[in-house]
Amino acid sequence: MTGEFDLIRRYFWDASSLRDDVVTGIGDDCAVLAPPLGMELVVSTDTLVEGVHFPEGTHPSDVGYKALAVNLSDLAAMGADPAWFLLNLTLPRADAEWLSGFSKGLLQLARDYHIALVGGDTTRGPLSVTITVHGFVPQGGAIRRRGARPGDVVYVTGFLGQAILGLKCWRREIDLPEEFLPGALDRFLRPAPRLDEARVLRGLASAAIDLSDGLAADLGHLLEASEVGARVWLERLPVSPAYDSVFGSMGWDPVLAGGDDYELCFTLPPEQRRAFHGRFVDFSCGFAEIGEIEAEPGLRLIGAGGSPYALACPGYDHFAGS
Amino acid sequence: MTGEFDLIRRYFWDASSLRDDVVTGIGDDCAVLAPPLGMELVVSTDTLVEGVHFPEGTHPSDVGYKALAVNLSDLAAMGADPAWFLLNLTLPRADAEWLSGFSKGLLQLARDYHIALVGGDTTRGPLSVTITVHGFVPQGGAIRRRGARPGDVVYVTGFLGQAILGLKCWRREIDLPEEFLPGALDRFLRPAPRLDEARVLRGLASAAIDLSDGLAADLGHLLEASEVGARVWLERLPVSPAYDSVFGSMGWDPVLAGGDDYELCFTLPPEQRRAFHGRFVDFSCGFAEIGEIEAEPGLRLIGAGGSPYALACPGYDHFAGS
Repeated sequence: MTGEFDLIRRYFWDASSLRDDVVTGIGDDCAVLAPPLGMELVVSTDTLVEGVHFPEGTHPSDVGYKALAVNLSDLAAMGADPAWFLLNLTLPRADAEWLSGFSKGLLQLARDYHIALVGGDTTRGPLSVTITVHGFVPQGGAIRRRGARPGDVVYVTGFLGQAILGLKCWRREIDLPEEFLPGALDRFLRPAPRLDEARVLRGLASAAIDLSDGLAADLGHLLEASEVGARVWLERLPVSPAYDSVFGSMGWDPVLAGGDDYELCFTLPPEQRRAFHGRFVDFSCGFAEIGEIEAEPGLRLIGAGGSPYALACPGYDHFAGS
Repeated sequence: MTGEFDLIRRYFWDASSLRDDVVTGIGDDCAVLAPPLGMELVVSTDTLVEGVHFPEGTHPSDVGYKALAVNLSDLAAMGADPAWFLLNLTLPRADAEWLSGFSKGLLQLARDYHIALVGGDTTRGPLSVTITVHGFVPQGGAIRRRGARPGDVVYVTGFLGQAILGLKCWRREIDLPEEFLPGALDRFLRPAPRLDEARVLRGLASAAIDLSDGLAADLGHLLEASEVGARVWLERLPVSPAYDSVFGSMGWDPVLAGGDDYELCFTLPPEQRRAFHGRFVDFSCGFAEIGEIEAEPGLRLIGAGGSPYALACPGYDHFAGS
């Protein structure tokens, strides 16, 4: 057996045997999997490149955690229950210490959500991680981007602008009070996929998206897919006490356009509000009603005193300006 | 809409609408797919890195073709029918000409096998391509590596050592007669996934693997998984007329250890031979009986006059020596 295979085995084999629906896991040409009857398969994939999606020097366990978390966040946005994932790891060299840390962060999150690693690939090259996740929804039950209708209420989970706050702390570009520092870094390095929350939204939400590129950009995608517009009030946007402590130097733009928060943005028909509030109360992340869907296309941001607010930079785009 | 999304749309959107079982394709947080009843899902993923898996300067349409072909080859090794794929593309910059060529090669092969592109990700970074393929087998019908038994016959499809011959031509390390040159380059740049052939093997073959790292290494994996050994006669290994024309300078090692051929190696119980020969006769790639499974572990190569043959280098390993 050659080194490449030994590597994969040593660090990742364990995660393959978590679930009964894995007929053949790691170690053959393909995984063989048994989809549950009457369910639709939900699939997503994301690549994280060092220096683009995480800073050089990020602890490998945080890289592992985040690579899986951002993919699970996509499943959450569809209201899907996660099941399996594949891992493509490109590394400059087979570094046992790095792999050990990486697999710890990755497999911890996998265990938390009872999902199995069923395959992957290891190649030599500049550090990057691709994960492909698989989950399930009942037939016709996926929450899509395109279902928002005029009159629907716009919601977000958790706090916005947390990841960019963490990044600025990591880079020492901002001086956060000591008490807020660990939390801010944690939200940047280890975003929480809102999977449990998303399950509650199934059958209630008319549309949903996860916030990877910032509220303005991602809500923009939802509005475009739904062929509607929205009005969002800045004063309703949920910011954390940590963010609030440095609001003077940060302002609204990172709340609206900061990437990597991985909260959910979703819309609810008004008649579903009561059911939603009743069921969602158990979740510690909280939620906020931030706006309303309108027939007129476009996103209208309403600032203090009802005046329109213009955003300096609409969102994060890897290829913008190239 | 930002540049990144425009890019993906422009070149790849078309391939999403090929199949009725795609409920939601490209353009949402996840793809939503309808697995056929009574089938098992077969999944595999491979990453190709520039300079490691394809030389710098490879035509983008060949990169696109090959990235999908090597993944389909994994499905073939399990006897699976292909259905859907995802594409993660990491590019130094959004180069329209490169993307146009890449998508042509990729989508041509996708159309040939009626498979749909259902999702993916585009990121900035050093050029690499990850593809994840999904296919189906009837319940319990996957051909695995672990089913070979003593007495089974060992087969390969097509010719061996073709890809390394093509690579040596590409690098101008070898002088192939003019008539053989286009064919040799084509087998290196555009390996043919043996999907149609593999479907015939379902229910007949006891074990199978595709040849990505060379016969010796890959048959070695099959033998290890099956906990058996094999005897293989060099004189039975199928080499092309092109290879034969330069055999003097090439020898047996590239036939045994050259990667990237993507032929199938499989084993058949002797009682299935007649059925197999009858059904396989339609396929132009041809096949050869190269050896026999034995109880004693290990791969025994038999050279001229029945003497054991020792291979200089056992196979291709991206991390070997690091």
